Amino acid sequence: MPGRSSPEWELFADWAGTLADLAGTAGLLGWDRETLMPPAGAEGRARQLGTLAALHHRELVRPDAGAAIDALREADGELDDDARVMLRLAARDRDRALRVPEDLVREITEAGSRCVSVWIEARKADDFAAYAGPLRRVLELKRRQAEAIGIGDEPYDALLDEFEPGARVADLEPVFADLRVRLTPIVAAASQREPVELPPRDWAEDGQMALAHDIAAMVGFEESGGVIARSAHPFTGSPHAGDVRFTTRLDRESPLSNIGAVMHELGHALYEQGLPAEVARTPLHDAPSLGAHESQSRFWENQIGHTRAFWEALEPALRRRFPEAMTGLDPALLHRAGRVVRPSLIRVEADEVTYNLHIVVRFEIELALMRGDLAVDDLPGAFADGMERLLGIRPPSDALGAMQDIHWADGMFGYFPTYTLGNLYAAQLAAAAEQELGGIERAVEEGRLLDVLAFMRERVHRHGARLETRELMRRATGRELGSDALIAHLASAYGAGCP
Amino acid sequence: MPGRSSPEWELFADWAGTLADLAGTAGLLGWDRETLMPPAGAEGRARQLGTLAALHHRELVRPDAGAAIDALREADGELDDDARVMLRLAARDRDRALRVPEDLVREITEAGSRCVSVWIEARKADDFAAYAGPLRRVLELKRRQAEAIGIGDEPYDALLDEFEPGARVADLEPVFADLRVRLTPIVAAASQREPVELPPRDWAEDGQMALAHDIAAMVGFEESGGVIARSAHPFTGSPHAGDVRFTTRLDRESPLSNIGAVMHELGHALYEQGLPAEVARTPLHDAPSLGAHESQSRFWENQIGHTRAFWEALEPALRRRFPEAMTGLDPALLHRAGRVVRPSLIRVEADEVTYNLHIVVRFEIELALMRGDLAVDDLPGAFADGMERLLGIRPPSDALGAMQDIHWADGMFGYFPTYTLGNLYAAQLAAAAEQELGGIERAVEEGRLLDVLAFMRERVHRHGARLETRELMRRATGRELGSDALIAHLASAYGAGCP
Repeated sequence: MPGRSSPEWELFADWAGTLADLAGTAGLLGWDRETLMPPAGAEGRARQLGTLAALHHRELVRPDAGAAIDALREADGELDDDARVMLRLAARDRDRALRVPEDLVREITEAGSRCVSVWIEARKADDFAAYAGPLRRVLELKRRQAEAIGIGDEPYDALLDEFEPGARVADLEPVFADLRVRLTPIVAAASQREPVELPPRDWAEDGQMALAHDIAAMVGFEESGGVIARSAHPFTGSPHAGDVRFTTRLDRESPLSNIGAVMHELGHALYEQGLPAEVARTPLHDAPSLGAHESQSRFWENQIGHTRAFWEALEPALRRRFPEAMTGLDPALLHRAGRVVRPSLIRVEADEVTYNLHIVVRFEIELALMRGDLAVDDLPGAFADGMERLLGIRPPSDALGAMQDIHWADGMFGYFPTYTLGNLYAAQLAAAAEQELGGIERAVEEGRLLDVLAFMRERVHRHGARLETRELMRRATGRELGSDALIAHLASAYGAGCP
Repeated sequence: MPGRSSPEWELFADWAGTLADLAGTAGLLGWDRETLMPPAGAEGRARQLGTLAALHHRELVRPDAGAAIDALREADGELDDDARVMLRLAARDRDRALRVPEDLVREITEAGSRCVSVWIEARKADDFAAYAGPLRRVLELKRRQAEAIGIGDEPYDALLDEFEPGARVADLEPVFADLRVRLTPIVAAASQREPVELPPRDWAEDGQMALAHDIAAMVGFEESGGVIARSAHPFTGSPHAGDVRFTTRLDRESPLSNIGAVMHELGHALYEQGLPAEVARTPLHDAPSLGAHESQSRFWENQIGHTRAFWEALEPALRRRFPEAMTGLDPALLHRAGRVVRPSLIRVEADEVTYNLHIVVRFEIELALMRGDLAVDDLPGAFADGMERLLGIRPPSDALGAMQDIHWADGMFGYFPTYTLGNLYAAQLAAAAEQELGGIERAVEEGRLLDVLAFMRERVHRHGARLETRELMRRATGRELGSDALIAHLASAYGAGCP
């Protein structure tokens, strides 16, 4: 019977390692494109990434790998738990790839690529009509893809499942509806508070990059296995174990954008550094879902980075890097300036309270689009109505409304909810950490940031993809997915009667 | 009959493009390893490069590609000249690869990457013993590879042929012996001249990087399609058309090392930028050999960078970047300081006269290692003896002796001779340019550096790999390979009776 010492296992391990290496390589090419590649390289890089995607697909559907997986799974008794999960995850990815005909894959890639190009220009010109046709095509192809995959009760489920394995519309809808209702009074209370603004100062870019390294060291990011760089849009990646990278965004007029981006990306980066090294180059060396990954970025950004104690801990580094700009500023002021709540138009610039309403608007719309309850031509109106209903402001243009994100143009339906799932899980994790550490604020005050990391390593990171997200979070937080923890956190930080 | 519009050609073009993309991807991973990757990434990167090498190999030997190539070559009459050469080069690479088993390819790549990591640390610690084991492993695998390929009269020929297609030990030995004899009096005469040294100054690293960009602009390097960075060992690479990269080496105590490295790497980089764009992602979008590539780096470094006119042209940039350090210095002094000939320990810092003797030492040693006439444990002694015999100085440590270069660690046996082939061809090209441009010194004096580039574009770059190196150089220089042009150049610049 084939176990870990069989030729079938050797073939499987080699195949899984090759897939991991190809995915990591594509990640590095993307990193380089955003941080270093010269403009003339765009066309060559796009082709190179296309080639890697094709090779990844070809490898994924190799018949001998499928046969080895089947043989190994039949001999279930010979396998340890890790091996069993690896095979299950590998079979899932493989089946998913096999169900979608190659022609459809190519059509989706081409239509998405074309739609993104149109979107870039249409957004500039605020011309939704030009974008509607290509978007309709993408939507139709994604619906066909969802039907081919056939997971869940409706097409949207199959797409959601790609980013958040196991999640279903039927589970998310009540949680999101609940969240929407309970957020309204918090937004109202927080919006009435006077906004705190920093006085105009010069926050030099060198100092801000040095500060990024200071923060990374504070929270336990290992630079002997890491890189920090700069890009237009912050992101985190890891080409392979031992090399975890993130970028930040710099604004010379304020340190807040950089610090927020660094804390957010550090959450992702610490997760990657904490994945179980013993299963590198296997499907277990990963987060179980995007929501799980986002729980880490949101935890460090909002649950740690928004404590007053964090700003006090950061003060010496801020004064060292910016002796002039920091004159007359104190941690209390920076803390308040970083927590202004205001309904605003752009999702990626939204505060942590209103952010989730931006997601609810998008979730409801993409669900309606996928169900056929909303036509693409009616999308701009529905988007503006949603913003007005949930956030009380109406986008003055489609560029600032239905066309602001790249996701739909690129066919990423089902991606948006994972951001709010991250916020929900982050708050649940914070509630658990609160208990375990005798208070998060106090732990940070006492300089125990590495204890916070140790908590997260133990409860989340070390498991890799061994558990599905809901089970991982159930065990880590002692609760089912729900909005209680997030609402409690936001109400206590921003609700009526807060300082 | 299958021509360019046939399905066979489509398959062939797709296959060649995939190979080019994989090779470029591996190049980018290597670039990143030398410039940015954190130390903990070494093991993961080695595996990733191993996987890419294995995929490259698997693609290269695909039977359907072989069948397509055969069908296309049989229908020779349907093909244009470019198509014919592409097929010939592709068939050559494919035949070579078919002879080496995939496992061996992966073992070589992984062993090389691992040996490089060990070498980095062992060289720092001057610990040859730590390095000997991994090196022995690399040597053993390369010998197996050479035997599997079976080109030429002895294993070394098969390795040499990879870097310098068509070259054989039997052809190189007389040219190198001749060179060695004719260099001796020039070294003796040049060494007797009083060395010119720059006074101690601080050459800040920021200024030196800015100067690298100044020089790049001067000679016509297009930064919209280029990157310049810093690494321990300067090198040039191109992940794909439109993205050409080189690194330089900085020494705070002198600008000469940086300027020399920049001119050298620019030679490679200009060649890459000048390759025929219409054949991107085909075997023609390349130099025909490393010797041809090196002819360009040596031309710009030694034939242009060592003219007095070059230093005069560079003077304004030097004064702009280093107003203090340049006080009291003039182009004549810098020119002379950059041309001191002295037997010295480090190949990459050697002057252009003694440089070729460093190569002869290495050529003789790697030939002996490959023939089994020298054991790895005896390498340090043999290296020191060779240096003493040819250059009259004995390395005081292995770090400054047998461990100074990355090549052997990375399995690149047969590579060193291509440097001297580059010097020989560069001198032949300079003799041709001298005629065509009415004197190189005069062209530089008159600010016609872009005319020099145009000469090289016309004679060398635009051909890509359409001609074999010997034929390319025969047409470009009007001569057969030999040492006359190089000896004439060195004798006139450094020989007895020179200023």
